[in-house]
Amino acid sequence: MSNNKKIIPRLLSGFRDKLPQEAMLKLSVLHKLSNVFDNFGFVPIETPHLEYADILSKQGGEDIQKELYKFIDNGGREVALRFDQTIPLARFISLHKDKLDLPFKRYVIGNVFRGEKAQRGRYREFTQCDFDFIGSNSIACDAEIIQVIYKALIMLGINEFTIWINNRKILNGICKHFNIKDEVLLLRTIDKIDKIGLKTVNDELCKFINKDSVSALLDIVSIKQDNSSDEFFNKIAYLKEWNIELKYGINELENLYKILSNLNIDKSSYRINFSVARGLNYYTGVVYETMLNNMKELGSICSGGRYDNLTKSFLDENISGVGASIGIDRLLSVLETNPKKTSARILIAPLSEDLFSYSYKIAELLRASDIAIEVYPDAIKLKKQLSYANKKKHEFVAIIGDEEAKSNTITLRNMTTSIQMKEVSIIKAIELLKN
Amino acid sequence: MSNNKKIIPRLLSGFRDKLPQEAMLKLSVLHKLSNVFDNFGFVPIETPHLEYADILSKQGGEDIQKELYKFIDNGGREVALRFDQTIPLARFISLHKDKLDLPFKRYVIGNVFRGEKAQRGRYREFTQCDFDFIGSNSIACDAEIIQVIYKALIMLGINEFTIWINNRKILNGICKHFNIKDEVLLLRTIDKIDKIGLKTVNDELCKFINKDSVSALLDIVSIKQDNSSDEFFNKIAYLKEWNIELKYGINELENLYKILSNLNIDKSSYRINFSVARGLNYYTGVVYETMLNNMKELGSICSGGRYDNLTKSFLDENISGVGASIGIDRLLSVLETNPKKTSARILIAPLSEDLFSYSYKIAELLRASDIAIEVYPDAIKLKKQLSYANKKKHEFVAIIGDEEAKSNTITLRNMTTSIQMKEVSIIKAIELLKN
Repeated sequence: MSNNKKIIPRLLSGFRDKLPQEAMLKLSVLHKLSNVFDNFGFVPIETPHLEYADILSKQGGEDIQKELYKFIDNGGREVALRFDQTIPLARFISLHKDKLDLPFKRYVIGNVFRGEKAQRGRYREFTQCDFDFIGSNSIACDAEIIQVIYKALIMLGINEFTIWINNRKILNGICKHFNIKDEVLLLRTIDKIDKIGLKTVNDELCKFINKDSVSALLDIVSIKQDNSSDEFFNKIAYLKEWNIELKYGINELENLYKILSNLNIDKSSYRINFSVARGLNYYTGVVYETMLNNMKELGSICSGGRYDNLTKSFLDENISGVGASIGIDRLLSVLETNPKKTSARILIAPLSEDLFSYSYKIAELLRASDIAIEVYPDAIKLKKQLSYANKKKHEFVAIIGDEEAKSNTITLRNMTTSIQMKEVSIIKAIELLKN
Repeated sequence: MSNNKKIIPRLLSGFRDKLPQEAMLKLSVLHKLSNVFDNFGFVPIETPHLEYADILSKQGGEDIQKELYKFIDNGGREVALRFDQTIPLARFISLHKDKLDLPFKRYVIGNVFRGEKAQRGRYREFTQCDFDFIGSNSIACDAEIIQVIYKALIMLGINEFTIWINNRKILNGICKHFNIKDEVLLLRTIDKIDKIGLKTVNDELCKFINKDSVSALLDIVSIKQDNSSDEFFNKIAYLKEWNIELKYGINELENLYKILSNLNIDKSSYRINFSVARGLNYYTGVVYETMLNNMKELGSICSGGRYDNLTKSFLDENISGVGASIGIDRLLSVLETNPKKTSARILIAPLSEDLFSYSYKIAELLRASDIAIEVYPDAIKLKKQLSYANKKKHEFVAIIGDEEAKSNTITLRNMTTSIQMKEVSIIKAIELLKN
């Protein structure tokens, strides 16, 4: 009897299924992104979802420790599910570097796991798409990553966005100038300007920075490019005199702009913003985040930057890189799903079981012309088959009765107009559907 | 100091990375498979990697219990990584059935986890691609799944394979005829004929079946179709008289063949084999497995069948289905990887940093014609850039010096022939590369 007890079908809190419409959208997005990466010579790699826990823990920081899905496997090993794609990349590069010829450009698309407090729009399993340029210090790599972000979003039909760019060296220079010791705390605090507002950030800063400096400091980190890049770089040129970090940082941005400005990229889509810090402590150079202009509350849909010590947990050798990460689930939430619940354009509706053979033959002929076809598998009443096509939103139904089979034709019903055409030959049908 | 201690970069036993060549092959295979599924009106879905452990355990059987990656999460829940795509499908259908209009055709591509003994060719994380036709008892669905297997393999360039077909009803009928009580044990034993040989299977059967029956039984389960289907069905027609299970089972196969034989499918690629049992106990109707003719030792690369009680653990209502699963990793092992280590056809080689801008402009123009381009990010010596292109197997290198920038051309080097063409305009280059 106990075997017959039903289990309640349910999902873990913070996890979810993707129903067909969302899954179809996701596949098409991932396919478009892969095409962009391929076009720039990035190659895919894959790493396991499960790693030794110490590998993931080392660089993770305290927040991550709490959120890590960690457990002892049946062999007594302490293992954990990956929480990002960067640490597995560092492990991957360290393990395989002799087989990879640097510079190495990789992308990866996969799920990561974080036991965060479940809340609206936050999931414990989500898809990250990362692309990185490993093994070169050239600013050309930084420019290329930004170019890829731009092309990727345009390919997805997203036009109204801004890539906000900064340089950790500039923030280092500002800290040095204002004699701030706890740089990480400063970065985390100013990173919140957009979220909690300038006033609150001001109050928080006053707790650990000399009050007089705070307003001067905030004036600097509030600097945003709101005019042409030439004018902007002229306006901030005086900061180069403050110290060498600021000088190098600004020079790098100027070199970055030299490459970007010659490309076919809308100049209003990327701008400098000194308050962009990116919380993660491994960044060392140019950093960026990408906001939708009309939906800033969504947060960044693509962020990244340069890190000079990717492999430091594993190797004596320092291998540097620059890369970005697209939050696929966040991105999907702003794209529209197709109203169709099927990939097929036509439903073939056989009116009796004897007509299955003919129906499948017709399906095969249409598919050979790249028209996606579904055959209804039961010879139920036509009305029911039409109602099914209505729900799933097939564009046409091909009705197959004895007459059609005899004359080697189909009756084609347009599901939008409800107009039926009789005795349509397969050649005619292909012609109609290709237009 | 302890912070500087290095961690050995390593993988868990039974887990592995996919390097670019293998990952590129995998992506192209998955893309081709998705196209086939789309063409037949199958839609993708996605379920989490992690589920409540009781959901996965219930239908799993004893073997699976031992292999399950099960643990207590930070919220005290007993959770587990999925070990197949069928139980998550049953949970998915049970949970969302009001939103899905049956019949429902889905595919899913994702990783599953089994803590099996690590051994050559067996991994603890591997990719499964399942496609199922849910909510109809029609034999047309069984025919369509077999058609999809055929098309999928042909699309992947695999031609020499056999889909071995059987029907659980036939095996039930055979058991009934020979008065065998432990049907599961019988199925498991005859399933091993190809692995351990007829003689060993004979000895094993003698342990629990009357010796006299064993050879008669083996004669029956050794029946394979080795001639036309008409001749074959004639030859076995006498079995229909034995009992109703055999009659129904054979009739179903005849109806299946009626649909398949009219399609553009090579008739030697699917054959009936009474020894195909498929170990899993949820199958109730037609079952099949697919062997490469020249590599039988690989085992089945695509197996499946009909199950009449998919949702029985979750619902009172019985929803039936038929589906198959492709072992992607096994499949990849027989496909050839491309020798190229890059997705790019051309490497652009700038000879000085001043030429980055021009180089990226050229790259952008070529990419606009769908030619995949990589720009070398450092202006190192040409010899080194050429050696890099040699290793990664770019087809061409576009050399960018001051002269090229001045004349708005490139020097194009064919990496196979080492022939260099000077002063190639972009239009000319696109023409050359498109042919």
